[in-house]
Amino acid sequence: MPLKIGIAGLGTVGGGALKILGEHAQMIAARAGRPVVITAISARDKTKDRGAFARALRWVDDPMSMATDPDIDVVVELIGGSEGIAKSLVEKSLEAGKSVVTANKALIAHHGVQLAALAEKHGVVLAFEAAVAGGVPIIKALRDGLAANRFTRVVGIINGSCNYILTHMQNDGVAFDVMMKKAHELGYLEADPSFDIDGIDAAHKIAILASLAFGSAPAIDKVYAEGIRHVSLRDITFAKELGCRIKLLAIATHTERGIEQRVHPALVPVSSPLANVNDSYNMVMVEGDHVGTVFFEGRGAGAGPTGSSVVADIMDIARGVHYKPFTLPVAQLTRGRFIAMEQCRTSYYVRLSVADQPGVLADITAKLSAEKISMKAFLQHPHQPGEAVQLVLTTHETEESSMLRAIAAIAKLGSVKEKPYMIRMESN
Amino acid sequence: MPLKIGIAGLGTVGGGALKILGEHAQMIAARAGRPVVITAISARDKTKDRGAFARALRWVDDPMSMATDPDIDVVVELIGGSEGIAKSLVEKSLEAGKSVVTANKALIAHHGVQLAALAEKHGVVLAFEAAVAGGVPIIKALRDGLAANRFTRVVGIINGSCNYILTHMQNDGVAFDVMMKKAHELGYLEADPSFDIDGIDAAHKIAILASLAFGSAPAIDKVYAEGIRHVSLRDITFAKELGCRIKLLAIATHTERGIEQRVHPALVPVSSPLANVNDSYNMVMVEGDHVGTVFFEGRGAGAGPTGSSVVADIMDIARGVHYKPFTLPVAQLTRGRFIAMEQCRTSYYVRLSVADQPGVLADITAKLSAEKISMKAFLQHPHQPGEAVQLVLTTHETEESSMLRAIAAIAKLGSVKEKPYMIRMESN
Repeated sequence: MPLKIGIAGLGTVGGGALKILGEHAQMIAARAGRPVVITAISARDKTKDRGAFARALRWVDDPMSMATDPDIDVVVELIGGSEGIAKSLVEKSLEAGKSVVTANKALIAHHGVQLAALAEKHGVVLAFEAAVAGGVPIIKALRDGLAANRFTRVVGIINGSCNYILTHMQNDGVAFDVMMKKAHELGYLEADPSFDIDGIDAAHKIAILASLAFGSAPAIDKVYAEGIRHVSLRDITFAKELGCRIKLLAIATHTERGIEQRVHPALVPVSSPLANVNDSYNMVMVEGDHVGTVFFEGRGAGAGPTGSSVVADIMDIARGVHYKPFTLPVAQLTRGRFIAMEQCRTSYYVRLSVADQPGVLADITAKLSAEKISMKAFLQHPHQPGEAVQLVLTTHETEESSMLRAIAAIAKLGSVKEKPYMIRMESN
Repeated sequence: MPLKIGIAGLGTVGGGALKILGEHAQMIAARAGRPVVITAISARDKTKDRGAFARALRWVDDPMSMATDPDIDVVVELIGGSEGIAKSLVEKSLEAGKSVVTANKALIAHHGVQLAALAEKHGVVLAFEAAVAGGVPIIKALRDGLAANRFTRVVGIINGSCNYILTHMQNDGVAFDVMMKKAHELGYLEADPSFDIDGIDAAHKIAILASLAFGSAPAIDKVYAEGIRHVSLRDITFAKELGCRIKLLAIATHTERGIEQRVHPALVPVSSPLANVNDSYNMVMVEGDHVGTVFFEGRGAGAGPTGSSVVADIMDIARGVHYKPFTLPVAQLTRGRFIAMEQCRTSYYVRLSVADQPGVLADITAKLSAEKISMKAFLQHPHQPGEAVQLVLTTHETEESSMLRAIAAIAKLGSVKEKPYMIRMESN
């Protein structure tokens, strides 16, 4: 008995999944124990040429019709967006007793619990391996291969576009604006580039990973998200002098005080595996109490890698493999106690532009001392007389709220010429 | 309904699995959807104190009795060894309709197909995630998360003991013999250290990974295995000058001419992720046609990591998740066309000890030319007059058989003072 699937959305990911299913039909049938056949496809633009394989498939104009199509067992939602048609299609499909495979991180981050409840109620699968880290099977690893561990921390480089931009700023000395344009031309950025650049995409993904790791419902509103817009070549140079590289990290930590969820640029030591993830590659580092630290690295986007994860989910359904979407039954997912960014503890890099006059450093360190923050290192670049001095200081670990107060006080000093720029530092 | 398991063998891995099952009983029940209870344990030495949790469990003197014990659903075989009691216990358990979880790479590499056929016949699970790369869920990734890909290559650092020894030879300049003693004292080596040091353990593991990747029956007799005994500090220094590190690699490649399976020390460029895997960490790199290259890194041995993989397999059985041991049904596993080491193509590092006299290099290069091997680089260390000269040459890619003939010819030159030592070079 073949598994009959309908694919809604034929963009990069949908096109990738279609290509794999066409190319590897025989291999997939052998590995999954039964054939997977595409009984319907749908996309916005019917006229686009998608090749002979796609032309031979049944086209439906209204993707919503797939939800109730008797000739479809599994609906593959690759339309995207947390609301609208993607959400309706997934809901209606689950309600109609069809399993759903999706790559839609926004949808899962925002409505995952409600959708998982629907899947549970109707005894069907809701799978979303492709929603995080493209071709890297990190969701399966948390749910399955590493499931014997209590997880303490998940750290990821999970936005390939930002990593591409930061890598080339680092290696080629090209400014953010120029790299952003290039990433846009290469099709590396979402329609609204703010999703990538401002850390929203990574926030969706880390909310999903945190839920799987800590057994809490995904809480996208509890993710602190700060993007890479303000990272300058100057910061990259200073970071290098400190033996670090700047990466956009997504971090979820289980602490005694609650769960931390944060996305922001961070200085990581060059010796860290995270510092050595380049271009559009993704890496997820998982800490479990028995397994220790495990690293997963691979391509985080693109037709092939993301399509590979979509098809893997379909093959699991064909095999009759059935995991709960968030590992635990929905009723057992906790509401989670979350820690606000202000209560997080880390160490800091602060770049300042100050007047070239005596006493400046004394004034700055006084403001740090007032918040009981101890300085770790101090760097200053040569400058022309009369020009503002660029200096960088790094701190030992402190609470974010203390750091914010210290920076606000420093910003008010007459000798400080620009708004200070702060980047968090992560030791792994 | 709880899942009832019997654990046979309580060494490092058995002890680790026991600890996790005790510590995380509640979490495991929540994630797996039902409790996992240990209804019997067995080990060689009953008198050893294994703590209060173990003392409270039912002890059986004869592990073979577990195969027919009505109070056991799953037999967890952690005795080890490819023959004898481990093999009999697994066979009898499968025949009695019980699922089996094992960490026994020798058993699976030698008898995997026969055991998988038994599991298939009786409709039960045979799972062995812990057999390769300890806590790293690489078997699940090949069978599941990456299953939509045609695999072209699997490269692993999958013997933690060898990697520990090579890392410290590299970083601390300590000779092989000394490091080997230290690894032995730390309990890093198998009872027969030759299994680790001579590449046999890695050979078992790559035979299993090759089978999963290429759909062929594991063929341990078709793995070329060469260990790290002859790697000297001199080689490590020369490698460094060439921008490389020496690692024990296990390589399985699907080529048009057939499947290559080989384990040997190799020079890898420092920029390769493989060069940066240190101590007892393992890494497996998988190349798939759609996903590209994916890296998995984590602890390859020890109670916690390996126990974590054993318990993950048990949890899958508790959930009713059922994969075929080698992905494909046994009847569909191919016998595979394998390429002998002599037919493999790679590039080479050759270290020579030669007399300090004119014409030596000309003689050596003539022997290479005779086999149509082109030289790539040449290094020579300063020496005292009258002493033998240590020199190293590297070649472009050539067939192993040509290289072996060239080296045999070089070894016969009167000016060559010691047996030449050759190490293969891998560019990723």
